[in-house]
Amino acid sequence: MNNYLQVVDQIKRKSSFLIVGLDSDYSKFPPNVQFPDVELAIMRFNKAIIEATAAYAVGYKLNSAFYECHGIAGLKALRDTVRYIKEKYPEMLVILDAKRGDIGNTSACYARAAFDSFQADAVTVAPYMGYDSVEPFLRYKDKWTILLALTSNKGSADFQQLLTKDETFVFENVLRTASKWELHSDTMNAEQMMFVVGATQADWFKKIRQIVPDHFLLVPGVGAQGGSLRAVVENGINREFCCLLVNASRSIIFASKDDNFAMAAAHKAAEMQKEMSDLLKEFTLI
Amino acid sequence: MNNYLQVVDQIKRKSSFLIVGLDSDYSKFPPNVQFPDVELAIMRFNKAIIEATAAYAVGYKLNSAFYECHGIAGLKALRDTVRYIKEKYPEMLVILDAKRGDIGNTSACYARAAFDSFQADAVTVAPYMGYDSVEPFLRYKDKWTILLALTSNKGSADFQQLLTKDETFVFENVLRTASKWELHSDTMNAEQMMFVVGATQADWFKKIRQIVPDHFLLVPGVGAQGGSLRAVVENGINREFCCLLVNASRSIIFASKDDNFAMAAAHKAAEMQKEMSDLLKEFTLI
Repeated sequence: MNNYLQVVDQIKRKSSFLIVGLDSDYSKFPPNVQFPDVELAIMRFNKAIIEATAAYAVGYKLNSAFYECHGIAGLKALRDTVRYIKEKYPEMLVILDAKRGDIGNTSACYARAAFDSFQADAVTVAPYMGYDSVEPFLRYKDKWTILLALTSNKGSADFQQLLTKDETFVFENVLRTASKWELHSDTMNAEQMMFVVGATQADWFKKIRQIVPDHFLLVPGVGAQGGSLRAVVENGINREFCCLLVNASRSIIFASKDDNFAMAAAHKAAEMQKEMSDLLKEFTLI
Repeated sequence: MNNYLQVVDQIKRKSSFLIVGLDSDYSKFPPNVQFPDVELAIMRFNKAIIEATAAYAVGYKLNSAFYECHGIAGLKALRDTVRYIKEKYPEMLVILDAKRGDIGNTSACYARAAFDSFQADAVTVAPYMGYDSVEPFLRYKDKWTILLALTSNKGSADFQQLLTKDETFVFENVLRTASKWELHSDTMNAEQMMFVVGATQADWFKKIRQIVPDHFLLVPGVGAQGGSLRAVVENGINREFCCLLVNASRSIIFASKDDNFAMAAAHKAAEMQKEMSDLLKEFTLI
């Protein structure tokens, strides 16, 4: 499930625009998956979560940090989780949340890592270093590049919300500039790029939609971080293609700290899917 | 070799502020290290480069991208290279150039990955997500956090050099704000933070030194990217503590494409060290 219309189709078919974030923090694992072998533990946990939530989600987001912190063992679990999803649920969008970005020849290596080595369909990229740090990702025309625009955390105020001389914020400049970057193929910008906009920033969605009406937005911050799904949809939905992917991580995968964690995750994911389905109906997308 | 004065001492002792960048791109390896086993190939290459350049450098910078692109095998080589340096040359500063950054609980995992799993002394961090994305790195009071400020690539103009409403550039705001972040211990900000400033931006060094007079600057872009060492020193040196670490990667490690690569790297590193030594004398630091 890669291209723009296929993602839209999945959303309509599943009545869901939920991405489940596999922020699989070993220290929060329930007792029955706390194997001393970290790789095994993460795989057991992830497989259980995936099986429990696949019916309600259109994709999974793996945040690299939670795997890297265990060194090689964690990275094997990252690789194997992606493989597992792609084999079992090939229609799912697999996002590697890595927030990479470097000078051109180096970013090309990060793109290879994300797309070739780890087989992700999409990768998050940090915009600070500008066009030539993002361009190597865009060379993969069947993959998605998801650029940070306005993140969900408090620190987004520090630099993203600096006011520039023309009375616009830095994040608006990122959106405006990056959405016009030309691609190597004849794909349109919105077919290869998405932007991260935090759900905690609901006030900004209307303004953001004026700049990027047709781009998918990957929206973290609903759930543990407190953003409202309704507010995101009301202000951010595209009336034809939805163009929202809402990620929930901790609120789903750690819905229970006990051995019933998979069941609890399923309930939480189903609850979010129901809410999304209702909203998709309300906005006549399904 | 970790704390501020120890770094200064190393620079004076070796008459060098050279960091050798182990951007160990397998596709550029000379014939005699092109083993099909990537892990073995990278280790052979890195060890040869390290042995050839250790006398002239005060540290090594490993850019994570060149290892990640080979998946697990590459990451093992990254881990083992750091181990090798720390065992054989414990005085060397080992920088993991990873340009990480995420929301707080996630950045904490990246900090663990860099400092605990991969045992680096320092890690590069992207500023876009603000204070709470950097703070978890700063909790490691014996480690360095190296924040991107003004990078060496063309794309630095896109967002880093946006003019803000108070007539300063975004990167100046990053320097000004981040250099005032309070740390958890009683260390001063300059004892735990460095900033990346590209050598290709020599015109800016004077201005940058007004904002951060006592912070170490990690300076890429001399060598393959065309920055001038003299211009960097003239505009950026701190007259008491030097406070410059100049990185060269490709110009040293790929000085020769042939089997004499280690010898060529040694020559190139020695040449840079000589130039640095002359400049340190000229500015009466040694």
